[in-house]
Amino acid sequence: MNAAIGQLIGVGVGPGDPELMTLKAVRALGAADVIAHFAKAGNNSHARGIACAHFRPDAEELPLLYPVTTEIHRHDAAYRLAIGAFYDESAARVAEHLMAGRTVAVLSEGDPLFYGSYMHLHVRLAHRFPTTVIPGVTGMSGCWSQAGAPIAQGDDVLMVLPGTLSEEDLTRRLAQADAAVIMKVGRNLPKIRRALAAAGRLPRALYAERGTMSDGFVMPLADRPDDKAPYFAIVLVPGWEGTA
Amino acid sequence: MNAAIGQLIGVGVGPGDPELMTLKAVRALGAADVIAHFAKAGNNSHARGIACAHFRPDAEELPLLYPVTTEIHRHDAAYRLAIGAFYDESAARVAEHLMAGRTVAVLSEGDPLFYGSYMHLHVRLAHRFPTTVIPGVTGMSGCWSQAGAPIAQGDDVLMVLPGTLSEEDLTRRLAQADAAVIMKVGRNLPKIRRALAAAGRLPRALYAERGTMSDGFVMPLADRPDDKAPYFAIVLVPGWEGTA
Repeated sequence: MNAAIGQLIGVGVGPGDPELMTLKAVRALGAADVIAHFAKAGNNSHARGIACAHFRPDAEELPLLYPVTTEIHRHDAAYRLAIGAFYDESAARVAEHLMAGRTVAVLSEGDPLFYGSYMHLHVRLAHRFPTTVIPGVTGMSGCWSQAGAPIAQGDDVLMVLPGTLSEEDLTRRLAQADAAVIMKVGRNLPKIRRALAAAGRLPRALYAERGTMSDGFVMPLADRPDDKAPYFAIVLVPGWEGTA
Repeated sequence: MNAAIGQLIGVGVGPGDPELMTLKAVRALGAADVIAHFAKAGNNSHARGIACAHFRPDAEELPLLYPVTTEIHRHDAAYRLAIGAFYDESAARVAEHLMAGRTVAVLSEGDPLFYGSYMHLHVRLAHRFPTTVIPGVTGMSGCWSQAGAPIAQGDDVLMVLPGTLSEEDLTRRLAQADAAVIMKVGRNLPKIRRALAAAGRLPRALYAERGTMSDGFVMPLADRPDDKAPYFAIVLVPGWEGTA
């Protein structure tokens, strides 16, 4: 192995509260030569905001800015081409640093291999460079902890469902789950509410925004109006009612 | 509110590597008056082993030792009575410290509200005492990170399934999942393997033991013989093949 080759580290920075970073993530960021983070063009990286207090003072930052594709539907071939090219180019920029012997930490909100952008670099680079993944506390754990809502116990089946599923599919799956987490809420909220009601799961469902962040909150979904919800809001359906 | 009442803190200590504790967990343990941990009688608490370097030197430890119930099936009424009485008594012991104004941290491997024993205290005490839950990195995150296996992406449906389900039920659910985590492997391993094969998911399935611990390992399930597996082993079925 070429001793001059650098190491790739996928770093989970947790759900939002900087105190929910792991000791391992903090140490990795204090040692990394280069710190890469994904963001939408014109926005700050959330992950950077969580973790920046721990960057090595002379570390080089590598912002990876998503192309603007709001005009294109995400199942469209043009979208897939644009986003694929973006990940290819991002991986090439990271690889350049690794080839020069620099350690590159890639920030990931929550856990890197659980629905994270880091995965797109991982599949392009992990077979070529020494790679470590530092797991993190997921956004969903942050939300159910903030709510104090036991999510699953014993023989419970827990489903993680994207809010993008059809109403019929959501309803059918919710009826078969003991506990559920619905991600990608955003404009899917009215559909998610109808599916929960049809599956008999609306009464216990919770709506969470920015769990563990200073402005985060959790409330019964039944009390939440059907107006605009952010894409990263999640809905929790606790499965366990606490009978021992 | 009575100023003399103590605080209950459910502390997730992560999947095994002490470096995967959060800053928040470390600080909470350094301040707690009493540290409670569950263990089987005659065994050490795994969670205690992960976290003990951070206990306040003069903290009082409160071991909560499960009654020996191996002779009784866990769906048996006698088992449920014995285990319910144990949790009632454990909650009473914790409550005594809280009433005396002491902060009590209850250790939990992984995340406290995700299949953790702490939940049995939470449902008995959180409505009576000020309570905080500190989320942790789950065992499953530890395992897929150690394996470097992206578990779910985009619109993937992820299911967390107990290995105790029937072979028919496991097969049916695995066929409907993009990604899956199967917990409580132990003597269910041969059945889990048959269900994965029937659902066409065996080739990519991974077997993990003690993920992130110094003696932990991950291997293709297809290469793992069907002999004795520990109860806390897990099986991962990654959902995402990395096509951007």
